[in-house]
Amino acid sequence: MTTHRFTPSKYFNTLGTAEPVLRVANGDTIVTDTIDASGLDAREVAVASRPNPMTGPFFIEGAEPGDTLAVHIERLTPSRATGWTYSPLALTVLDPAAVADRPAPQRAVWDIDQKAGTVRLQQPVAGLEDFAPAIQPMIGCFGVAPAGGQAFSTATSAQNGGNMDYRLFAPGTTAWFPVAVPGALFYLGDGHACQGDGEIVGTGIETSFEMEVTFTVLKRAITWPRGETAEDIFTIGNARPLDQALQHATTEMSKWLGEDYGLDARAASHLMGQVVRYDVGNVFNPAFTVACRIAKKWLTKR
Amino acid sequence: MTTHRFTPSKYFNTLGTAEPVLRVANGDTIVTDTIDASGLDAREVAVASRPNPMTGPFFIEGAEPGDTLAVHIERLTPSRATGWTYSPLALTVLDPAAVADRPAPQRAVWDIDQKAGTVRLQQPVAGLEDFAPAIQPMIGCFGVAPAGGQAFSTATSAQNGGNMDYRLFAPGTTAWFPVAVPGALFYLGDGHACQGDGEIVGTGIETSFEMEVTFTVLKRAITWPRGETAEDIFTIGNARPLDQALQHATTEMSKWLGEDYGLDARAASHLMGQVVRYDVGNVFNPAFTVACRIAKKWLTKR
Amino acid sequence: MTTHRFTPSKYFNTLGTAEPVLRVANGDTIVTDTIDASGLDAREVAVASRPNPMTGPFFIEGAEPGDTLAVHIERLTPSRATGWTYSPLALTVLDPAAVADRPAPQRAVWDIDQKAGTVRLQQPVAGLEDFAPAIQPMIGCFGVAPAGGQAFSTATSAQNGGNMDYRLFAPGTTAWFPVAVPGALFYLGDGHACQGDGEIVGTGIETSFEMEVTFTVLKRAITWPRGETAEDIFTIGNARPLDQALQHATTEMSKWLGEDYGLDARAASHLMGQVVRYDVGNVFNPAFTVACRIAKKWLTKR
Amino acid sequence: MTTHRFTPSKYFNTLGTAEPVLRVANGDTIVTDTIDASGLDAREVAVASRPNPMTGPFFIEGAEPGDTLAVHIERLTPSRATGWTYSPLALTVLDPAAVADRPAPQRAVWDIDQKAGTVRLQQPVAGLEDFAPAIQPMIGCFGVAPAGGQAFSTATSAQNGGNMDYRLFAPGTTAWFPVAVPGALFYLGDGHACQGDGEIVGTGIETSFEMEVTFTVLKRAITWPRGETAEDIFTIGNARPLDQALQHATTEMSKWLGEDYGLDARAASHLMGQVVRYDVGNVFNPAFTVACRIAKKWLTKR
Repeated sequence: MTTHRFTPSKYFNTLGTAEPVLRVANGDTIVTDTIDASGLDAREVAVASRPNPMTGPFFIEGAEPGDTLAVHIERLTPSRATGWTYSPLALTVLDPAAVADRPAPQRAVWDIDQKAGTVRLQQPVAGLEDFAPAIQPMIGCFGVAPAGGQAFSTATSAQNGGNMDYRLFAPGTTAWFPVAVPGALFYLGDGHACQGDGEIVGTGIETSFEMEVTFTVLKRAITWPRGETAEDIFTIGNARPLDQALQHATTEMSKWLGEDYGLDARAASHLMGQVVRYDVGNVFNPAFTVACRIAKKWLTKR
Repeated sequence: MTTHRFTPSKYFNTLGTAEPVLRVANGDTIVTDTIDASGLDAREVAVASRPNPMTGPFFIEGAEPGDTLAVHIERLTPSRATGWTYSPLALTVLDPAAVADRPAPQRAVWDIDQKAGTVRLQQPVAGLEDFAPAIQPMIGCFGVAPAGGQAFSTATSAQNGGNMDYRLFAPGTTAWFPVAVPGALFYLGDGHACQGDGEIVGTGIETSFEMEVTFTVLKRAITWPRGETAEDIFTIGNARPLDQALQHATTEMSKWLGEDYGLDARAASHLMGQVVRYDVGNVFNPAFTVACRIAKKWLTKR
Repeated sequence: MTTHRFTPSKYFNTLGTAEPVLRVANGDTIVTDTIDASGLDAREVAVASRPNPMTGPFFIEGAEPGDTLAVHIERLTPSRATGWTYSPLALTVLDPAAVADRPAPQRAVWDIDQKAGTVRLQQPVAGLEDFAPAIQPMIGCFGVAPAGGQAFSTATSAQNGGNMDYRLFAPGTTAWFPVAVPGALFYLGDGHACQGDGEIVGTGIETSFEMEVTFTVLKRAITWPRGETAEDIFTIGNARPLDQALQHATTEMSKWLGEDYGLDARAASHLMGQVVRYDVGNVFNPAFTVACRIAKKWLTKR
Repeated sequence: MTTHRFTPSKYFNTLGTAEPVLRVANGDTIVTDTIDASGLDAREVAVASRPNPMTGPFFIEGAEPGDTLAVHIERLTPSRATGWTYSPLALTVLDPAAVADRPAPQRAVWDIDQKAGTVRLQQPVAGLEDFAPAIQPMIGCFGVAPAGGQAFSTATSAQNGGNMDYRLFAPGTTAWFPVAVPGALFYLGDGHACQGDGEIVGTGIETSFEMEVTFTVLKRAITWPRGETAEDIFTIGNARPLDQALQHATTEMSKWLGEDYGLDARAASHLMGQVVRYDVGNVFNPAFTVACRIAKKWLTKR
C-alpha cells in the first residue's frame, strides 16, 4: 500500500495502449497533477493540447483483461485559483430553432476561492452578481485503455470510461472500469471545480488539480463503468442518443443487482421501478452519458 | 375562490376538445376522484378503459388561447389500500441484446399503508422482503386540450402535458400548462402512490385517488409545461428521443430565466452550466419526458 | 363501382373523427380537388389555413375497425401552373454547427409546365438556370382517422398515415391504411408536383391538385401503412428518431412477407438482407418517415 | 503509375496509425487480397480474427493531413466460391416488442456462382428456392487512419471511413477520405458479394476478395467521406442515431455543391430539395451510415 507522488511530463489525448509512465501495485495510491481541458497547468502555462490532456497511463499490477479496476477518488484539490467555462448553451441542448438566436461563444474566467469554498465569475454578469456556488470538484475524463488496440479521443467516452463529465465522480466515490489490457492502463484529468448536469455549456469550471486516487483490482467482469458513493451505487452508459446510454446503464444496473444483491431480473425491476434515479453526465460530447443510480439504503449485500 | 366537489361519471382516453364536465372560476379549487391507469376505481371496480382514463375536462373561466393555466396540486390522497405495477423492466430501457432474457410480464399488487406511510409488495419477492419505500403520491397524466382540434391519447404527452409520469408532479407543486382553447379544458388522472425515475416498469404504483387542485389563469404564454416546487423551478420537454425532450426543456428554461429572473441568454447559460439538474419523467411512453430543474435559491424574481 | 366528383367546401387540419363529407361504396372512385399546404386553391385563393388542409373525410362503406383500406392513386393532376417551396435546408437535416450560417428562410415560386412535363424556378438562381426536373406528382399527406378518438395534426404522421411526404405515393401506387373507425374516414391533400427524399426544405413543390383515387376494403389487419407500385411493395414507419421509423417499417415488412409470400421470419431475413431498400419519406415533420421496400420480382404470392 | 501486387501476411482490426505494409506513389494502383469479416481467406482458412480484419495500411506518398485521398475501386473479384450471412434480422432494425419472437441466430452459406453471376443459399429455405440475386460486389469496410492518434475498431465507422457497408462502394466508384496522418494509411477489407440496404442481418454475403484500387491525392479538405459513381455523387455520414448521420451527409453535400458546382447554400437547397436521394449504408454497426446522393445530370462542374 504505497503512495506514489507522480509528476507528469507528457500528456495524452487518447485513451489507448501506450507505454506506462508508472507501474503501481494493487492497493497503491497515486498523488498526481492534472492540467485543465485546454492544457493549462497550475501556473496557467500551456503544456499540452486539447482535448482533455490526460495524466498517465498508470499500469496497475495484477490487472488483467476481464478484471475490474476500482479507483477510489481520495481527494481532488484545485491547484490554481481560477478556472474557465464557455457560454452560451451548447448546440446539443437547444432546440434547433433557437440556435440562430444564440449569442457568440465566449470564454469566462471564474475565481476558485478555496477559503470560501465557492466559485464566482471574475467579470460581473447582470443578474449573477451574487452567484457563488460551492466548489464541487469532480473528474471530467478518466478511464482505462479500451480493448482490441483501439484508442479513443479524450473528447468522447465508451465502455472504458473517458469523458463522462458526471458530477458524482467526486471525492469519496469509487469508480469501476472494465480492464481490457494487462495493467489496465489508467488515465485521468479534465478536473472541474464545479459543473451542473449535462456539461451544457461544453465545460465545467475547467482547472488544474492535484488528484489522489487508490487502485484495487477486482477479479470480476463488468461491461460498463460502475460507481459507489457514500449513499448510492450507480452504473454508467455512454452512447448517443441518450436513450441508448440509458439502456446501457439500466441493463448494467439490473445485472449488478443480481450479482451482488440477490435480486433476479424481476425483483430488480420491482426495486428499480420504485426507487431508481437517472442522472445526466454530459449531453455535449460525441457520446452522451447517463447514470442509473440506486440508494444503498434499499440494498443488502449477499 | 370556491371549492368544488366533483364526482366523475365518465372518463376520457384523450386530451382534446370535449364538452366540459364542470365550469369553474379562476382561483377555484376542485376536489375530485381519479381512477387508476386501467380504469379501476376506489372499490376496484372497472369503470373505464385503458389507457389512463381521465377525470375532466374542467373549463376554467377566463383562460384563453395564449394564456397559461397554473394548477396547484393541493393534495393527492390514495382512495384505496392497494395499487399495482408491472414487471420486469420495459423494452425501452433495456439493451436490445438483453430483451431475449427478460422474464414474462406480470402484474403485481402493492399494499398502500397510509398509517405507515409506505408501499409494500403483497406477495413476497426474494430479496425484497423488507422493501417498503415511502408513499410519494404523484400525478402521472394531466394537462389541457391541445391546439388546432387535435386530441392526444392519454398514453402519450406533448406541449399540452399528458402522460409525463414525473415524480415532482406531487403535492405542493404548481404545474403550468399552455392554454390552447377557451377554458383550457383541464384533465387529470393516472395517480401513482410511488414511482422511480423513468416509469421503467411501465407503471408507477397505479391506484385511485382523491385529488385536490387549484387553478390560476396567468396572462402570459409558455411553450412547454413548467412547474414550481418549494425548492425548485422546472420545465418539461416531451419527445423522442430523450435528446429532443431535453432540448425542449432546456430551451424553455433559458427563456423562463430571461422572462422572470433577469438573466439574458448568456447569463442563463452561466447559471445553468453550474447548477442545472435534469430529471427523467418517463422513458416508457410514446413521447419521453425530461425535466430541466433549477433550485430557487440561485434565483431572484425581477 | 361509381365514380364520384366531389368539390370540397371546407378543409381539415387534423385526421380525426369528423362528420363525413361523402359516403362511398367499397370499390368506388373519387375525383376531388385538393388545395396546397398553405391553403391556396387552384386560383391561388386562400380558402383554408395551415398546416396541410385536407379534403375529406370520406366514409367508405363496409370498412370496419381492424380492416385495411386500400387506396389506389389513379391520377394526380396539378390544377394550377405554379407551386412553391421554401429554402434553405431545414434545421432537422443540418449539423447543428452549420445552422448559424444558414441563409434566411424564403419562399420561391416554381412554374409547373405540364406541356414540357417539368418544374422550374420562376426567379433565376445562379447555377440553376437549366434546372428543370420532371413533374413527379405525389400525395404529401393522406390517411384515415386514428383509433380511440384521437385527432392528429396534418403536420405529422402515425400508424394511420398522415404527413409522410413519400415520393412513391404517386399515380399507380396503391396505399394501405389500417382502419380504426367505421367507414375509415379517409382524408387527402398536400399534393407536391415534385420532391426529393426527405422533404428537406420543408416542402415539396406545393400546389393544388385534382386527385382521383379508388377505394377497396380488405378484410385483413395491418399495423403500419403499406403500399404497392408496379415494381415494389413497401411498408412505412412514422416516428422519431429515424431509427424507430425504420424499425416499424422493417418489422411490418417482415410480417407482410410471412402473411402473403410464404416466408417465415428466417426466410424473410435472408431475402431482405440481400435486396431490401430503404427510402426516407420526410425528415422534417414531427414524426419522420421511413419506407422499407422490396422489388416484387423477388416475391411469389402464396 | 505503378500497379503493385501485394499479398498480406497480417491483418488489422482497427483503423489507426500503424507501420505501413507498403508505400506507393500518388497515382499508383494496388491489387491485393482481402479476407472475410470473420478472418477466413480464399481457402477458407482462418488467418485472422474478427471484426473485419483489414489488409493494409498502405502509405500513399504525398498525402498530408488536410488532404483528401481518392480511392478508385477498379475491381472487386470474389476469391472463393462461397460466402456467408447471418439470420434473422438484427436487433437494431426490429421493433423491441418483436425481439422476443425472433428465431435463433444462425450462419448460412451462399454459393457465389461467378459464371451465372448470382449468389444462392446452399441449403434450401422454403419460399426462397429460386432466390438468386446478382453478385454485386462491394467493400464493407475501408478508410484511412483517424486524427489525433485515435484507433477505431473495424466494427464501426467515423469521419475516416470504416465499416460503412454501403452498396455503392462498388467497382467504378471513387471514394474520398479525409487524410489525417502523413501517407493517409489506407486499409481495406470486409468485401461483400451482395448486400441489401442497411446490412440488416448483420452481414452482407461475406467472402474473400481480390481487390484492385487506385489512389489519387487531392490537395483539398473534406470533413466526411465522399464518393462518385458513373451516375451520382454522394456524401457519407456515420453516427447514431440515423438522424445525425443524415445531418452529417447532408451538410457535407451542401458544402460540396458550393465548392465544385457553383451553388450557394440557397441554390444547393433548391436543387437538393427536388432531387436528393438518401441511402442507408448500415443500421447494424455501432455507428450507422447514411449517404446523401445527387445525380450528376443535375450538376455542372465550375
